[in-house]
Amino acid sequence: MNNMGKVKRNIHRADKTAVERLAKYGVATVHEAMGRVGMLHTYMRPVYPGARVSGTALTVLLHPGDNWMLHVAIEQIQAGDILVLGTTEPSDAGYFGDLLATSAMARGCRGLIIDAGVRDVRDLEKMGFPVWSKAICAQGTVKEVLGSVNVPILCAGAAIDAGDVIVADDDGVCVVKHSDAADVLAAAQKRSANEGDKRARFAQGELGLDMYDMRGRLKTEGLKYV
Amino acid sequence: MNNMGKVKRNIHRADKTAVERLAKYGVATVHEAMGRVGMLHTYMRPVYPGARVSGTALTVLLHPGDNWMLHVAIEQIQAGDILVLGTTEPSDAGYFGDLLATSAMARGCRGLIIDAGVRDVRDLEKMGFPVWSKAICAQGTVKEVLGSVNVPILCAGAAIDAGDVIVADDDGVCVVKHSDAADVLAAAQKRSANEGDKRARFAQGELGLDMYDMRGRLKTEGLKYV
Amino acid sequence: MNNMGKVKRNIHRADKTAVERLAKYGVATVHEAMGRVGMLHTYMRPVYPGARVSGTALTVLLHPGDNWMLHVAIEQIQAGDILVLGTTEPSDAGYFGDLLATSAMARGCRGLIIDAGVRDVRDLEKMGFPVWSKAICAQGTVKEVLGSVNVPILCAGAAIDAGDVIVADDDGVCVVKHSDAADVLAAAQKRSANEGDKRARFAQGELGLDMYDMRGRLKTEGLKYV
Amino acid sequence: MNNMGKVKRNIHRADKTAVERLAKYGVATVHEAMGRVGMLHTYMRPVYPGARVSGTALTVLLHPGDNWMLHVAIEQIQAGDILVLGTTEPSDAGYFGDLLATSAMARGCRGLIIDAGVRDVRDLEKMGFPVWSKAICAQGTVKEVLGSVNVPILCAGAAIDAGDVIVADDDGVCVVKHSDAADVLAAAQKRSANEGDKRARFAQGELGLDMYDMRGRLKTEGLKYV
Amino acid sequence: MNNMGKVKRNIHRADKTAVERLAKYGVATVHEAMGRVGMLHTYMRPVYPGARVSGTALTVLLHPGDNWMLHVAIEQIQAGDILVLGTTEPSDAGYFGDLLATSAMARGCRGLIIDAGVRDVRDLEKMGFPVWSKAICAQGTVKEVLGSVNVPILCAGAAIDAGDVIVADDDGVCVVKHSDAADVLAAAQKRSANEGDKRARFAQGELGLDMYDMRGRLKTEGLKYV
Amino acid sequence: MNNMGKVKRNIHRADKTAVERLAKYGVATVHEAMGRVGMLHTYMRPVYPGARVSGTALTVLLHPGDNWMLHVAIEQIQAGDILVLGTTEPSDAGYFGDLLATSAMARGCRGLIIDAGVRDVRDLEKMGFPVWSKAICAQGTVKEVLGSVNVPILCAGAAIDAGDVIVADDDGVCVVKHSDAADVLAAAQKRSANEGDKRARFAQGELGLDMYDMRGRLKTEGLKYV
Repeated sequence: MNNMGKVKRNIHRADKTAVERLAKYGVATVHEAMGRVGMLHTYMRPVYPGARVSGTALTVLLHPGDNWMLHVAIEQIQAGDILVLGTTEPSDAGYFGDLLATSAMARGCRGLIIDAGVRDVRDLEKMGFPVWSKAICAQGTVKEVLGSVNVPILCAGAAIDAGDVIVADDDGVCVVKHSDAADVLAAAQKRSANEGDKRARFAQGELGLDMYDMRGRLKTEGLKYV
Repeated sequence: MNNMGKVKRNIHRADKTAVERLAKYGVATVHEAMGRVGMLHTYMRPVYPGARVSGTALTVLLHPGDNWMLHVAIEQIQAGDILVLGTTEPSDAGYFGDLLATSAMARGCRGLIIDAGVRDVRDLEKMGFPVWSKAICAQGTVKEVLGSVNVPILCAGAAIDAGDVIVADDDGVCVVKHSDAADVLAAAQKRSANEGDKRARFAQGELGLDMYDMRGRLKTEGLKYV
Repeated sequence: MNNMGKVKRNIHRADKTAVERLAKYGVATVHEAMGRVGMLHTYMRPVYPGARVSGTALTVLLHPGDNWMLHVAIEQIQAGDILVLGTTEPSDAGYFGDLLATSAMARGCRGLIIDAGVRDVRDLEKMGFPVWSKAICAQGTVKEVLGSVNVPILCAGAAIDAGDVIVADDDGVCVVKHSDAADVLAAAQKRSANEGDKRARFAQGELGLDMYDMRGRLKTEGLKYV
Repeated sequence: MNNMGKVKRNIHRADKTAVERLAKYGVATVHEAMGRVGMLHTYMRPVYPGARVSGTALTVLLHPGDNWMLHVAIEQIQAGDILVLGTTEPSDAGYFGDLLATSAMARGCRGLIIDAGVRDVRDLEKMGFPVWSKAICAQGTVKEVLGSVNVPILCAGAAIDAGDVIVADDDGVCVVKHSDAADVLAAAQKRSANEGDKRARFAQGELGLDMYDMRGRLKTEGLKYV
Repeated sequence: MNNMGKVKRNIHRADKTAVERLAKYGVATVHEAMGRVGMLHTYMRPVYPGARVSGTALTVLLHPGDNWMLHVAIEQIQAGDILVLGTTEPSDAGYFGDLLATSAMARGCRGLIIDAGVRDVRDLEKMGFPVWSKAICAQGTVKEVLGSVNVPILCAGAAIDAGDVIVADDDGVCVVKHSDAADVLAAAQKRSANEGDKRARFAQGELGLDMYDMRGRLKTEGLKYV
Repeated sequence: MNNMGKVKRNIHRADKTAVERLAKYGVATVHEAMGRVGMLHTYMRPVYPGARVSGTALTVLLHPGDNWMLHVAIEQIQAGDILVLGTTEPSDAGYFGDLLATSAMARGCRGLIIDAGVRDVRDLEKMGFPVWSKAICAQGTVKEVLGSVNVPILCAGAAIDAGDVIVADDDGVCVVKHSDAADVLAAAQKRSANEGDKRARFAQGELGLDMYDMRGRLKTEGLKYV
């Protein structure tokens, strides 16, 4: 039952092509394409604005105040992975900074999702290593207690398995189950295609009331103009 | 008593000239000019920095997780209005994004004050549509339950009536009762006129202790230099 | 026992040379150099990004909602000081804005650390006066109740004495006891020297597992690859 | 515009008979009878369990950290009033304790609703003086800055006028506009009458699905049993 | 992918005997027996003290502000079940009160775990229906939007499947995966057996340092007595 | 500079007689007697109501998620001590339960002040071992990383030295510097003597406005009756 002290080396990563393409659509569209599920808590914010990434989750479960297992995790990175980090107890310490980012980038890592704190944020922005975190915190950690790599984790209120797809941008972070990647991509493409037309019509002053034919239903539900 | 399911079409908007001029003074000055009242909670933050707006409140009251009434509200927008949105229960969902912003801008809307979440924040910045919100959140909403438009609402701890003046900038959001707009403008102008002179004197090293003649009163109150 | 109504004029400021040099290393390194202590709460955030400062603390203790004592404090500023402000009860009001910043800068003040709110943040950025605060808030304050200057204070969870060294950047704020300044500088220099080499090796793909020789100890602790 | 420094002596209190009778129905029923409005924030909790009161609001607006105006307010109490206290800025200090409670009770006060802190809670329970507060806090206050009595206030997210009806129990606090008291009482009586029958039928195992005839509408909306 | 609008009727409930016996050991012991996992967030508190229950989870996923699906869920209750309720977006509304509790108890329900609010808490205590919730809140809900029953949910930071074991007492709430019930029971029994002896030795003044033979390892790790 | 891994055996405990007598006056009076300082954060709440204690602080600094050092601390307890526990990073885990309480009581410990979580709260109440904590949490901890005993710590926003006096009751927790114990006792006695008379006069309907002769000063400050 205890999940600590394990490293799962062979994980089933979501289909590479689908993962690549999902980045284009962004978090809001992808999450709607799944039926409005998969969002991590809104406290997960980018440490610098403007990044948008998708990748496969390499999960890391840590004991609070201890980042030892991150070194173990980095060895398991494959190009296209995103580190996804949770702790066994809520924590804001700074588990990750420019040195670990340098090491992760050298392995092909695309970013970090951390339900805790990071530091060296000015350097992370200069390096172009995107991070979504709960906190910015310089408080250092120790290397004394084992955690685990690629076990299922809870991160910012979402259940994430190794190999799931992570999509993250300025609107937050969402997770797509690895078996759903292709279906979600198809749904996102369809949803996105519709939006261009709607945007143009809205820009010319057409009302949603008319575009979506809402007036009848509003009346039935009892809306009163006074 | 129940406020839901109503749209008030004719509202008394604050005097247009006063509304325009208040933007110039900014939130801190306007709020001081009113006697230090009217601020919304500090959790209301701009989704991008640098915007400063003033406008007349078009209020929207929504059921949590449901943004149906926003389409009804947009039809009621007049040029110079600002959408002001509250929910019947605290909520962080993403009620508003680039499509609704496109529609609102096409009607002459100047911005959004939302005691909840928004999404597509990168697009909102590109479009130049300013938003002050409690959260950035991609979590989508449904269109099933009626709300109301232009009823009095509570938004981020402030009581706001349709037609009140909203002033918002990087310091936050404040509300001026529509009947007070002219008086507040006069007070803000007076206050602002004083500040230029004070700034120059401070810059040259004059102390507030002397400029405001505080030393005597501090001594009377018992201040001790040790 | 009561600390209110006192201004301590002669304080022991940390060694000027050490203070200057500490800025270079930044918060994360300085805090590690002290043995992972001295961080203020993570809710202390810069009001604009990119600043990094070090200076000597000029402490101010205020009654909530009252900023009178800031004028008293500004008279005590010496070049190189940083204003460090706490309140006797938690508060988010806006105690400080562009006029006080102008006055403080004219006296040689390098910045403000405030466990409460500030306003005029757009102006503060234009002026280049760095502030780390708990809140951005336009809510004004009165000038009725005495506070104290240069007494020991608690600021965002850290105990700070007048004359201590403050180091602040995008990672947060830390405090170095004034008697420790030289030792901490030496430790920070040593720590920093090591980092350049490590960064280069990480960039070339070397793993922390090997660089820090961790594999043996991980095995001893029971790490399992599955 | 500034609301500070005023005491309104003559206020319009809600109808005494309606006020008395509303206590019987409790917060949940009264708030439903109004159409699901009027609740104060859930952070308002009783300092001891089991009390249920209704009364007319005597509003007090205070500067943070200053309880001077409470002595002014107590002189204005009439039998059946409930003190309702807000501050101009969020605060958790302890504005009220056993001495003020003794004084308020002697004037016929039925309780305190305070969007801040109280102290001497063990004594308040012994005295049987019910309090709903945001915090329990011993932090004392000063008597230096004027506030106001019987001006409209915002208390825990609700707009309250002097003379409105307050109903409070273990479920929280709600406010009934003084002009609505009689109508709300009638609606609460009706609602309550229905509940006894429903409770008996539920106790015997009847399902809400059948009692409220929900199965058809659930099917229409698309509910699937799998 | 969308989970809404589904009711799963046949679920695999954890072994009845194991479920019954786990209640005896309480949350702290059961959670330790699983290797320190399975705790829900600490904000989940009992609405009255002293209850301890175990049962099988009947999961309910609701749209915020809408409790319609609770009536659907109650039909699915079997004796020994515990209702476990999550919402698609964080919410504190009052989804559950004495009428629903009466209906649930009539079906054999043992309690409610709700990552949101409840009301009628005085009645719930009188009825002896134990509830662990995030909030006590009288704010009513509507019956307009479908949710789901017995789908996997996230509740207060834990992933819960229908049929899992819930153990709850004054220390909080934990979840045992249904396939682990027997193993966890065995581990809890073993752990508990040890505790009686330890308690007696501690009561007689024996130190943990000696009982657990810690002195050597503390010395090795570098502990200094000064 | 690093405080970890140290146990200070000889500490200067505050005068025993003063410590005993302070319990009688309670937190609100003692904190006022010190000039309104010394309160810990209001989030520190008793795990069961009704206890009031005073004692000398035995401080413990722990790494997050690790309670090893508590066993070291218990050996240092002398009769009349109160354990005061802080962590190097904010944490809500459950560091302390009935076994440690049994051990601490056997050594003469009077209670626990913990800026983190505790568990077995039902047992703690039965044992009569009073605890003030930030959280109730069953989440267990490990025994891997050294902390320190009797070093100065920050606990819930207060700076506490070993040997300081702790006073705690239903109003919260306050700390008296060990050198101030006798003076604070004298001030508390004086303050308390005054209160009995005031309480009697308030109970007979005398107003604070008259008792404290406030009417003149209120008028001078500009209070208006309207």
